[in-house]
Amino acid sequence: MNAWPLIPPLDLDAQAAARARHDTLTKPPGSLGRLEALALQLAAITGQLCPPVARKAIIVMAGDHGVTAEGVSAYPASVTPQMVLNFVRGGAAINVLARQAGARVTVVDVGVAADLPPLPGLLARKVAYGTRNMARGPAMTRAQAEAAIQIGVDTLALETANGLDLIATGDMGIGNTTASTALVAALTGLPVAPLTGRGTGVDDAGLRRKVAVIERALAVNQPDPRDPLAVLAKVGGLEIAGLVGVILGAASRRVPVVIDGFISGAAALVAAALAPEVTGYLIAAHQSVEVGHAVVLERLGPQPLLCLDLRLGEGTGAALAFYLVEAAARLLAEMSTFAEAGVSGPA
Amino acid sequence: MNAWPLIPPLDLDAQAAARARHDTLTKPPGSLGRLEALALQLAAITGQLCPPVARKAIIVMAGDHGVTAEGVSAYPASVTPQMVLNFVRGGAAINVLARQAGARVTVVDVGVAADLPPLPGLLARKVAYGTRNMARGPAMTRAQAEAAIQIGVDTLALETANGLDLIATGDMGIGNTTASTALVAALTGLPVAPLTGRGTGVDDAGLRRKVAVIERALAVNQPDPRDPLAVLAKVGGLEIAGLVGVILGAASRRVPVVIDGFISGAAALVAAALAPEVTGYLIAAHQSVEVGHAVVLERLGPQPLLCLDLRLGEGTGAALAFYLVEAAARLLAEMSTFAEAGVSGPA
Repeated sequence: MNAWPLIPPLDLDAQAAARARHDTLTKPPGSLGRLEALALQLAAITGQLCPPVARKAIIVMAGDHGVTAEGVSAYPASVTPQMVLNFVRGGAAINVLARQAGARVTVVDVGVAADLPPLPGLLARKVAYGTRNMARGPAMTRAQAEAAIQIGVDTLALETANGLDLIATGDMGIGNTTASTALVAALTGLPVAPLTGRGTGVDDAGLRRKVAVIERALAVNQPDPRDPLAVLAKVGGLEIAGLVGVILGAASRRVPVVIDGFISGAAALVAAALAPEVTGYLIAAHQSVEVGHAVVLERLGPQPLLCLDLRLGEGTGAALAFYLVEAAARLLAEMSTFAEAGVSGPA
Repeated sequence: MNAWPLIPPLDLDAQAAARARHDTLTKPPGSLGRLEALALQLAAITGQLCPPVARKAIIVMAGDHGVTAEGVSAYPASVTPQMVLNFVRGGAAINVLARQAGARVTVVDVGVAADLPPLPGLLARKVAYGTRNMARGPAMTRAQAEAAIQIGVDTLALETANGLDLIATGDMGIGNTTASTALVAALTGLPVAPLTGRGTGVDDAGLRRKVAVIERALAVNQPDPRDPLAVLAKVGGLEIAGLVGVILGAASRRVPVVIDGFISGAAALVAAALAPEVTGYLIAAHQSVEVGHAVVLERLGPQPLLCLDLRLGEGTGAALAFYLVEAAARLLAEMSTFAEAGVSGPA
């Protein structure tokens, strides 16, 4: 396998046209700050001066983690399937924010460690009943990681067929800040402790245990950063691999992809290791409380749009950031120019 | 005069009820970060656990500044009336963002230095044809400052009569970062230079001139921070005084008030000097590029929701922040509890 979708180059002509139009609008040049840069990025990604932004979807990849056996999370693994059902019924934070954003939510069981009933809005794509305990050996086989990536690519294709202007990445998986921290440490070579946060809320003893477990997982598996797929298989997660596929698929189809927090960021880091061209397609939604996230964003490049101290995941920060992406697009499309409005330029 | 509207105390019982409900929702406690604090603040302001947030308005106060004669702005003063017409026609950034937010825009001519035709959506409340040049004497009389504040109070009352859940402050006035910087320096006692930014975009020479002009205005007028109304009259602006009234009026009616950037922040600082209880009613929309804004926010207390490097004014940041306020309210109102969703708590 390893035939990931090809990623087209950014359209620099469309980007230049967007820059030129922005500088004719009735405001001091640059005064809309990051919203101007965002409009330029949308043009570069889509090849359109003012691309549509109405059709939005959030893909929430769900999977379990064998490493929860080591006591790395404040919540039991049974919460993963319970929350998947909450997503499908519309009661979770991501559902509230998706309704506000006018976005669809697609939940994908790529590796939940429980049988889930067939439900509308839930794609049954289970590769395994959770990963294995990475503190004792590889979390997945290479084939499992590849299968989960392909599920992400295929899910994105399905969303595109339903009409898609913007996509957001979301995650559910008790234990997945542990896997994400291991991924970031393995891919960057940075020490584990300063990258490790409290996830859903472990106490100080839990945090020390979490650091030790991640260090053990890296020692046991010896992931080689030159082989990102192997890193993903050894210390990643099924839902993280699914998100890698969503990101690769979105970039290949020129769909702007709004990256949520730390888990999605770790997936983006893997995607960028597999295909560096994806970074131009990424919009960083927010700066998470999770300490490793700052490192992820720094490596990937895009500055986060929101600083709300979120640490929930599910795609919540990305769903909120849709609004700012839409604002950036609308401002470029709808504002009057100095000439149209009869407004004087600089003195 | 000086009979500003009375400001009721925050409702701490409603705030405690909001905290209690938040901790039952299907997420780790605190994981929605600033959106949780915001929901608590909404409850404290309105006295309702889940207050409505649908009816939103932006009041854009417009006025001119005699100090523009000193060459402190990159744009000529004629841009103020031109932009007012742009607002009324719907072509400015604030109009685009208001449409996206589903918010009304009310533009108030409280001191534009030009005759404006009667237009729908424009309230003609001119106190004077701009302020006088504060580098040579007081910008306004005390009576003019009071009249402009009263216009803000009355405008807010008018909006309330039309149905109002959230209000945002906006401004238009070439030269108003100069006045705002002078206000902040006078009220805080801080030196002028580190508080002074480029406004709409003056160059290095313009920035040095702006600092010197503000220092001269303070030396000429000797504003006394113990008399905030006198400070406002001497080195403020008519549109800034109007916003002081909007803020006082909103707090008196328990309407959450979303403060835009530096100009609105300077108005909030004056309002808080007149009535310290207003601070609990303030939501800081964003952190502006304008350097003095950080000082304003630090003095007022609320952390900004957005960090988008905006420096346009008009209420643009506040219009964007409406979305986050609405998200905070919806999450508390609509999310399922652990009990409702059958989700397990911490292990």
